[in-house]
Amino acid sequence: MKKVDHIGIAIKDLNNALPYYIETLGLKLIGIEEVESQKVKVAFIDAGNCKIELLEPIGEDCAIAKFLEKRGEGIHHIAFGVSDIRTRMKELKEKGVQLLQDEPKLGAGGAQVAFMHPKSSFGVLYELCDKGDKPNGHL
Amino acid sequence: MKKVDHIGIAIKDLNNALPYYIETLGLKLIGIEEVESQKVKVAFIDAGNCKIELLEPIGEDCAIAKFLEKRGEGIHHIAFGVSDIRTRMKELKEKGVQLLQDEPKLGAGGAQVAFMHPKSSFGVLYELCDKGDKPNGHL
Repeated sequence: MKKVDHIGIAIKDLNNALPYYIETLGLKLIGIEEVESQKVKVAFIDAGNCKIELLEPIGEDCAIAKFLEKRGEGIHHIAFGVSDIRTRMKELKEKGVQLLQDEPKLGAGGAQVAFMHPKSSFGVLYELCDKGDKPNGHL
Repeated sequence: MKKVDHIGIAIKDLNNALPYYIETLGLKLIGIEEVESQKVKVAFIDAGNCKIELLEPIGEDCAIAKFLEKRGEGIHHIAFGVSDIRTRMKELKEKGVQLLQDEPKLGAGGAQVAFMHPKSSFGVLYELCDKGDKPNGHL
């Protein structure tokens, strides 16, 4: 775990939330993209030392839509920046951590990502986020 | 908002959770303190570019105990490091943000803190955290 890459926040409608982050809090929008594999529209906000990732579901059949239905808008996950994600996943599994997938999957900005089950992490959904040779991060 | 100072996580028992953060995730414990004013025992973990603040309630009559009862263990708040917290609070109020207190209160490490109501912040409990002339942060 090198550092916190971003904090993911579930949002019903990016168009409603973005003015709060940009105009009210005075933070900078890095960019917006759609991640088809996870059925989300993502806005990255520059929070100085890490990013805030606002996640709006595309359709009803995705993890963020289910989270919104169950919990409402709010903090969804914390992503640690890692290198060599497969080795990190193997190490965590050997330490008894339950991962939500056996193989990394494609996340925003072309990153390889994997999630730890909140049951292993005292209620927190932690993401491993490996941006490989993309040192400038998302987008 | 200069940067994310820490991410607060509600935990039932620090003694159970700390081995996960230190041994499993390989992060470093900065220190533990009790914050009487908020009725919490706090462990700060070094997450590289920011801190993870694990919050265990002391007694049943505090915000963290109520959060645990309602939501279970999990991410509780995101704290932005700020300077001149009273000016920041005034600016946010003028922009229509509802704050949970009119005056800053004493937080961990002697910081002055104030919270924004999640209803103003699209479901996220944001903290303003002013460490004044304590550049090295908590503890």
